[in-house]
Formats: sequence, structure tokens, C-alpha cells
Amino acid sequence: MPSVRKAKSEGTKNVRARHVTRKLVELGGSVLEEVRKERNPKLYIPQRALSNVRFNAKQSIIELGKDRQARSFFNVGMSKKFMQTFLVAQACKQLLDEGKTTSIRDLYYMVKHTIADSKVNTFEDQPESDAILEDLEVTVDSLREELNLFASNRGAMVGNVTLTDSGDTIDCRRMGSGGYSVPSIVEPDVVQFNKINADFILLVEKDAVWRRLNEDRFWQEYRCILVHGGGMPPRGVRRLIHRFMSEAGLKLYVFVDNDPWGYYIYSVVKQGSINLAYESIRMAVPTAKFIGLSAFDRERFDLPEDDKLKMTEQDLARARQIQAYPWFQKKTWQREIQKMLENGLKFEIEVLSGKRISFVTEDYLPHKFSHPEEMLD
Amino acid sequence: MPSVRKAKSEGTKNVRARHVTRKLVELGGSVLEEVRKERNPKLYIPQRALSNVRFNAKQSIIELGKDRQARSFFNVGMSKKFMQTFLVAQACKQLLDEGKTTSIRDLYYMVKHTIADSKVNTFEDQPESDAILEDLEVTVDSLREELNLFASNRGAMVGNVTLTDSGDTIDCRRMGSGGYSVPSIVEPDVVQFNKINADFILLVEKDAVWRRLNEDRFWQEYRCILVHGGGMPPRGVRRLIHRFMSEAGLKLYVFVDNDPWGYYIYSVVKQGSINLAYESIRMAVPTAKFIGLSAFDRERFDLPEDDKLKMTEQDLARARQIQAYPWFQKKTWQREIQKMLENGLKFEIEVLSGKRISFVTEDYLPHKFSHPEEMLD
Repeated sequence: MPSVRKAKSEGTKNVRARHVTRKLVELGGSVLEEVRKERNPKLYIPQRALSNVRFNAKQSIIELGKDRQARSFFNVGMSKKFMQTFLVAQACKQLLDEGKTTSIRDLYYMVKHTIADSKVNTFEDQPESDAILEDLEVTVDSLREELNLFASNRGAMVGNVTLTDSGDTIDCRRMGSGGYSVPSIVEPDVVQFNKINADFILLVEKDAVWRRLNEDRFWQEYRCILVHGGGMPPRGVRRLIHRFMSEAGLKLYVFVDNDPWGYYIYSVVKQGSINLAYESIRMAVPTAKFIGLSAFDRERFDLPEDDKLKMTEQDLARARQIQAYPWFQKKTWQREIQKMLENGLKFEIEVLSGKRISFVTEDYLPHKFSHPEEMLD
Repeated sequence: MPSVRKAKSEGTKNVRARHVTRKLVELGGSVLEEVRKERNPKLYIPQRALSNVRFNAKQSIIELGKDRQARSFFNVGMSKKFMQTFLVAQACKQLLDEGKTTSIRDLYYMVKHTIADSKVNTFEDQPESDAILEDLEVTVDSLREELNLFASNRGAMVGNVTLTDSGDTIDCRRMGSGGYSVPSIVEPDVVQFNKINADFILLVEKDAVWRRLNEDRFWQEYRCILVHGGGMPPRGVRRLIHRFMSEAGLKLYVFVDNDPWGYYIYSVVKQGSINLAYESIRMAVPTAKFIGLSAFDRERFDLPEDDKLKMTEQDLARARQIQAYPWFQKKTWQREIQKMLENGLKFEIEVLSGKRISFVTEDYLPHKFSHPEEMLD
């Protein structure tokens, strides 16, 4: 068999890669400069602690504040992390130079080795390299995807859109029952939008519900794009939706189970998360609307009740926690969460199938779109 | 907005649906006949216990024996299950009649209700309806996919194949970085093969490795189809691979981590599992070969060693368990597992990235294909 040729993208660095590479080189250059001046070299890393995270109610996103911490080389507590930061930066530069992408698991293996003439490892385990990567992302203000690192490849898409992925044209109107598997890196140099004749995106929590809606061709009748993320949507799905919103002006409706986890998925998609506040600006979709299931749907749709649907102690605690979040302080949301607590019940979207297999397509969603006052913002 | 039309497939029952429906109707008919004759109606269900499972070494699959158990209506211990079997059969017939597919979660909601004038539920929880579904599958000798029920939608595919999915043409050579999302129902009435110019399938355990190989266009140079299942491949992926083998004569190579879980994935793909022995005949790929990682690759490729890679007590126990399975009794496999136990180490495929990002594409796999004696059968 023939030997495998070098990856086709190698050597043809694009604008993004050049831009990010420049930032990495500058980072190294500034430290080198300090060394030449015989000073103690330092890095300034934005703080990713809760104390430096705030909810911007006006823009409706969770964002990082301006606090920074110094990380210096001549400091017993910091020197290892200092070295690690540059190992990770070097690996990312290599990826960008070669035009290759890889996983954060791979990155760990790339940067891990035993330091010569010692028994000390550069990294002990992946959480260590993951944390350093997050430091680097905020320091050079780039998403990991811009550093050519990818997360998991979950989620599928069908609907009224044609796009180009790595030079291949993907018509999401003709993707059968399986759909287009959303890649984890969807930056503009990889994925470009061609023809969009959709008005909105419907993001569904579960693949089973997505499949039902695809089989019923919901996206065709309602001129939309149908996406699922297999639970909490992975970064690729969130970033793609963000691009649909910011570049094509599409609306987003989020369709989840009526339980605290469903509320949480909605909130992460809409305004980002505390842990990853620095990426909200490129991932969050502040205009997202919550289409259901709502705790009020219990009476609206006469949902069946059952002991098995009872919220556990853990569910109740989580709901109260969510009720206290600054981004759930709107009256409508307080009422919604209160109602869930009063119900004491959780409802999965699948509960609608107890009525009729296609009830979700033919009754539930059409009702919601003609009663926008029932949606939550 | 317009109302959603009925699913396009509704009413146009295909050959499979007619065939399976007939089996369900016969099942009901036979019981009705007993009732008319004023006998105690009975069902005969093949036993899915370990005692009724055997490894067919010649065909290299795990298969179900011929033991059956009676389930009768006038029996305090059986009458609820008897009723449940018919509720599930009725729901499946309805799905087939309407030409709709759904998840096993949905099925649970479809068959669950409180029996009139009582506080008794037909089903208490999903494990109950799942078990009854398995009974029904063996009784009418049909996979759940043939009963229009689907499992999870995981896994992606690229490579030298064009297929038709629900009337849409999918050219897997032009699916970008994301790939074609493998649906959970891939029966011949849904997915047809058009043009295959591939010699084999490479099934990869992890999506990250799949992505690396896709980016390097491995499938193009090696004329193959590249599939991942996100860990243990879901039923849709297994069934599709089975069809590629049986209908197009493609070979299958399985590429997994070197740990007991990797061995187990290989064995399930190759000969099926104990729990679901009845489906081996339509899911297993007895000709599958294990391409790596092998415990012997440690020396062959000078893999880095590390305390973090040490097998835990649990890993060691699992490896010994696997070593005792009848389908791992070949000398080559006994040596392989013994070597892992001696190493006391686990190796992820990602460990190869410590050498070079594309080592897996440019060195590891080419080496294996030119040294077939290193593969395991």
C-alpha cells in the first residue's frame, strides 16, 4: 500500500493560524526580553476565579473581569507552572505551524516527558495540562479551537443550510436520517456558510427527539436548522450556533427536558458558564429563547403524572441553587422555577410520546410557535 | 407558520415492515386462538440466560441456544409480563403501521399507563419495558431496529463509499471534517450502498483518533472506510459494519486502546455479547481483525512508560476475566493478554502522539498493514 502523504493543509497557514501564532511568539518574545535584561521573567494571566467573574445583565453574558495574576520563573511555587505554560504554548505553535489539529488528550501526551537526569515529569496527569491550556487561552485571548485543539465530536445537524467543511460542500437538506456530524472545530477557515434559507435554529437536548423531528421533516416545514448536542452541547455545536447567530442573524430556540439540568443547558448556551467565562464572548447566544418543556406545560398539555417523575432531594437542591443565580432573576424565570418546585415533578420531552408518537412535531412545537408568550427569555 | 405534514414515509409500508408486522400479528393470532378454545394462553420465549448461550467456535460468534420458557396468562407470577409483552408488541405494530421510528425511552412512555379503576401501572420503569422488548425481539426473531426502535445516534463515518439514506445521496468522500453521522437504524430499506471502492473498514474506538486519521486523509490513501463509535460502538455502527462485511465483502480492522476495555470492544464487535446473543447473527463480524494497540507494541514502538499508565486492581481483574472467556482461548490471544498482565501497563492510542502528531497515520498503521502477522484474529 502507498505511504500516507502529508496532510493536505500542511504548510498553507491561514489568516487565523498566522494571527494566533503571532500572539504565541509575542508571549515568548516578551519573556525572552526580560531574560536578556536579567530580570525575573513573568507572565500575566487573567484570573479565572469566581471572584473575577461577573454577570453582564445588559449583554446577558457571564464574563471575566480584569484581574490578573503574575506567574514568575524565580519563585518556588510558580516555576513549574511557568515552564508548563511554555511547553503547552510550544505544542500549540507546532500544531499551527503544521496545520494539524488534535485533542486535549493528545496535547497531554505531546507535552509530557521526564526531565533529563531527573525523575521529575513535566506533567503528572491531564487535568494539569488542561488547566495550563485554559491559562494560555485567556492569556493570548484565543479559544482552544483557534489553537488547533478540539474537544469531543458530538452532535448532528440537518436543515435549510448548505455549508463548506474543509473544502467539501455539505447540503444539510440532504443528509438522510443520520445528519451531518458537527465537527469540534468550526472556525471560519474550516467551516463556511454558503446558502442559508432558515429563520431560526432549534437546538434539541436529546438525539432521540432530534431524530423524531428529522423524520417528520420539521425543519423543512418550519424553515429551520435542527441541531442536537447529545445532552450538554459540546463546544463545536455551541460555537457553530454562535456563528449562525452573529453572522447570519438566526434566532435560537432551546428545547430541553423540564428538570434543573435542562434549565442549566439553556443557561450555558445563552450566557456561558462560570468556569469558562472567558469564552462567553465567542460561544454564548444571549438572544436564545427557552421553548420548553416548561413546568407550566403540565396543565397546558395535561401531562401524565407519576411517582417515577418525582424530583429527588438532589434535584430540589439543584433547582434552588439555579433559582439563586443572577442570570435567572427575571420574574418569568423565578415563576418557572417556583412552579417546578411546586410540581415536585420532572418531565422529559419523551413524555409527549405518551399522547401520540408525533405529538411533539404536530402539536407541541406548533403550539409554542403560535404562543410566543409561553417562551422564556 | 404552516402546520407540519404527516411524515413522508407514513402509509408506504416497505417489505421489512410488512414481514415483521406479519410476525407480530401471528403472535397475537396464536394467543387469540387459545382463548377461543378456552385454553390458558401461552407464549414461548427463547431463554436469554447464560445457561442458554454458547460460543460457536467454528463460526466465531456467541449464539443463543434452543431453550424456551412458557409465559402463560393464568399464572400469578406471569400474567403481568404476559400483558406487558402484548402492550409492547402493539406499540411496535403501531410504529410499523405508521412508518415511524422511535427510541426505547419513547416506547416506555407509549406503553406506560395506569390501569383503569386501579392504582396499578402497566410498567413501573424503563428497565421493565426494555426487558420485555428483548423478549419480543427473540420471540419474533427480529432486531429492535426492525421493530422501528432505535438506540443512540453515535459514531461518524468518512471514506470511499457513497450510500443512500432515506432517499438522500451521501458521498462519504466529501463529508468534511465532521463526517456522516451514522444513524441508529441502517436496515436496507433506510440505507442502501451505492458505490463502494474500499477494501476494508477501519473501526476506531475514539473520535479523537478518527479525526486525526480523517485530517490526514488516511482513508483516501488506503482505500478504506473510516468509522468511529465513540467508545463501544452503538448498534447502528455495528449493524452497518456487519452489512458492509456480508453484502460487500469488506474486511474489518478494529483499532482500540491497549486495555481490557479495548479487548472487550473488539470481542463484542467480532462475536457479539452474552446479553444480546440472539442478535449476533445480524450484528457480529466474525472475520474482524485486531490491529492494535497490542501489549507487544510497547517494545516494537518503544512506548513511553509511566506510573500513570499502571493498571489498577480493577483492570487486572478484568483482564484475567477476559483471559478466561472461551472466545479468547486462541494461543495468540492468551499471549497477548499475558503480556498485558506482565507489562502491568495500559496504553492509549494517544500515547503515539508523544512521538509525532501524525505518527499514527504515517508510521503505526502503515507498519501494521505491512506486518499482518502482528495483527490478532
